Amino acid sequence: MRRIYFDHSATTPVHPEVAEAMYRFLTGDNFGNPSSIHYFGLQARKAVTEAREKVAQAIGASPSEIVFTSGGTEADNMAIHGAAVANRKRGNHVITSAVEHHAVLDAVKNLGKQGFEITILPVDEYGMVRVEDVEKAITDKTTLITIMHANNEVGTIMPVAEIGKLARERGIVFHVDAVQSFGKIPVNVDELGADLLSVSGHKIYGPKGVGALYVRKGTPWRQTLVFGGGQERRRRAGTENVPGIVGLGKAAELALANMEEENRKLTALRDRLIEGVLNRFEDVILTGHPEKRLPNHASFCFKYIEGESLLLSLDMKGIAVSSGSACTSGSLEPSYVLLAMGIPYELAHGSLRVTMGKDNTEEDVDYFLEVMGPVVERIRAISPLTGKTGEPSLGTAVAR
Amino acid sequence: MRRIYFDHSATTPVHPEVAEAMYRFLTGDNFGNPSSIHYFGLQARKAVTEAREKVAQAIGASPSEIVFTSGGTEADNMAIHGAAVANRKRGNHVITSAVEHHAVLDAVKNLGKQGFEITILPVDEYGMVRVEDVEKAITDKTTLITIMHANNEVGTIMPVAEIGKLARERGIVFHVDAVQSFGKIPVNVDELGADLLSVSGHKIYGPKGVGALYVRKGTPWRQTLVFGGGQERRRRAGTENVPGIVGLGKAAELALANMEEENRKLTALRDRLIEGVLNRFEDVILTGHPEKRLPNHASFCFKYIEGESLLLSLDMKGIAVSSGSACTSGSLEPSYVLLAMGIPYELAHGSLRVTMGKDNTEEDVDYFLEVMGPVVERIRAISPLTGKTGEPSLGTAVAR
Ligand SMILES: Cc1ncc(COP(=O)(O)O)c(C=O)c1O
Ligand SMILES: Cc1ncc(COP(=O)(O)O)c(C=O)c1O
Repeated sequence: MRRIYFDHSATTPVHPEVAEAMYRFLTGDNFGNPSSIHYFGLQARKAVTEAREKVAQAIGASPSEIVFTSGGTEADNMAIHGAAVANRKRGNHVITSAVEHHAVLDAVKNLGKQGFEITILPVDEYGMVRVEDVEKAITDKTTLITIMHANNEVGTIMPVAEIGKLARERGIVFHVDAVQSFGKIPVNVDELGADLLSVSGHKIYGPKGVGALYVRKGTPWRQTLVFGGGQERRRRAGTENVPGIVGLGKAAELALANMEEENRKLTALRDRLIEGVLNRFEDVILTGHPEKRLPNHASFCFKYIEGESLLLSLDMKGIAVSSGSACTSGSLEPSYVLLAMGIPYELAHGSLRVTMGKDNTEEDVDYFLEVMGPVVERIRAISPLTGKTGEPSLGTAVAR
Repeated sequence: MRRIYFDHSATTPVHPEVAEAMYRFLTGDNFGNPSSIHYFGLQARKAVTEAREKVAQAIGASPSEIVFTSGGTEADNMAIHGAAVANRKRGNHVITSAVEHHAVLDAVKNLGKQGFEITILPVDEYGMVRVEDVEKAITDKTTLITIMHANNEVGTIMPVAEIGKLARERGIVFHVDAVQSFGKIPVNVDELGADLLSVSGHKIYGPKGVGALYVRKGTPWRQTLVFGGGQERRRRAGTENVPGIVGLGKAAELALANMEEENRKLTALRDRLIEGVLNRFEDVILTGHPEKRLPNHASFCFKYIEGESLLLSLDMKGIAVSSGSACTSGSLEPSYVLLAMGIPYELAHGSLRVTMGKDNTEEDVDYFLEVMGPVVERIRAISPLTGKTGEPSLGTAVAR
């Protein structure tokens, strides 16, 4: 069967060069423990050092500011808990947004249980955090602001640099979850004003199970989660995932080198797909910002459709997409991100996310559009939702 | 140069079958996110399920009791913090030993900072925890005992089953750090009486950056470290390290299949090496238990020698060993494990650990012994320690 992978925000195929680089560290003399001071340890240590340089370079940081983690989720948790705890004497107020990934939201909510005060900012109809809202939320007790660079479900790119400026002026630590933006659009810690920044390997054609946390030199932050050996300059205990780290380094290097070209190509594919969908179907809206969105990211809500049925029908035709985020799929609750954007419950149920990647082509997009026609028609024909909906709030939603 | 790797307690080469299995999940259609409900997600999910079954089988557990982690360190931290916090209403006393790995000791010490009462048990001259000491330490407030199965530095196998029995009788949660024993000697959660048990991939010819925590059904324990997506049945958030998990599963399967034969082979090599060293050199003691020790583990203290010089000299001859544990190497402090065993400071400085693995041969051992002669002689000849030591406590130490 012809298979088209359109779910790059969930995860990406590993770049062949990344797989090769990793394989070298699963074989031969390269298996050493980086903490060992003999030959084998040295090979591993060198590889980790090189990878650190590559990741640092990709985000405009110094190698010593990079801490390797087991992924984006751990990086987010480490960032948030570590900054909140390290600054506790100064204040106990943390600001985040309603559309953050669960790795951020749940980490922040957990702080709430530990006596921290939490502000969860609303977003506008595009899923965008308003800079004014951040400004208004800041109090004397605010020590941490954590806002994502780009949203995973709707692709919206946040005004992170402005928020970073605000945070800097007030002496507040600023954490940016750049898991979705890294590798797709420029991510520079100085331009964004980030003190802490999370990235993940498997979203950039790198491996799963590895990520990195950038910790700006001098940032009041400390490791609070995993204790043990002195790895990562005592900032993250545990024997280093050497092949994973090598893979992340390689992936970061490739992402940086290919970004401009990929960005151009993906933007064209994305726009072709978005136009195709909006022109071809009725009762559908684009979710997220029409312009300020990730170059590879198209997301919609279909009326009279259950997103999961759409996903499964497309899967039977060999097309892999998602409904909401991978993390909430399987649950019957509609996406909290869409609800936070003011999309009505019922419409939010019909969400579809199509996220493209380096191997996708125009033909893939056209095939998708071709397949979508009968699929949407069939689902709507048997939908219990059709017609039953009374006055749809869709009118408003479409008007955006 | 002929290279001999004798540092298998620090880390092991990845088994070629493990590397192949992992590579399959870095390429082709196998890169999906296990949370995705389409074809690609399903491939990944199936692989994680199979790996879970293999790990469960290797330790006599049910698949649903296995939580994949980023390694042994995280598993230890998750176990200890999660059990202490979940049982806080019942009591706040935690028991461990002085010779645990830093991943356990530092996690326990961190509980101490959070208001928990900590007992750190001493060990005997062989590095062995005494069951009576555990029994005496238990109070009404004890909710967690955490003792390692086998020690990483001196190879001593602890009376874990007896301690497990005690814990069971008193209704105390029992955590076993089985990172060093798993794959080398039988590890069965029921026989050991373990409620929580940690393993790590890279010590059993599997990959670095992946491990597992066994959580016995019904154990009062909860995830307290990393929040986010609902992966691992809400027990460990973060996109699963699929290739790593596949590698751990394969490594566990191979370890189980080869254990008996490997055990026999390694015991013979170990004894050949121990005898060779003790016969050939003066002023050297075997550290750890003479019989109750890991089949691949030989460890010594040399008088008038700095362990690091020994390590570096052997490295120049192509032989990779360690002095103390990999985690403390590079530091000038002698091993806390050796000190806890009552080995004098000065003697502890001359520690050497030789840990063998599946690819080592008798020739490797003989070559090691051959090389050791002139190396030890040379180091001792230039040692500032020689002769200066007054009355050595070595007499006692040797007598053990
Ligand atoms: C915005 C965002 N943050 C964090 C994460 C978590 O990263 P990881 O999957 O590496 O745990 C993801 C991906 O799922 C994400 O999209
Ligand atoms: C006894 C023991 N526990 C825990 C660990 C930590 O495991 P990992 O290296 O996977 O973090 C090690 C290895 O360094 C160990 O020897």
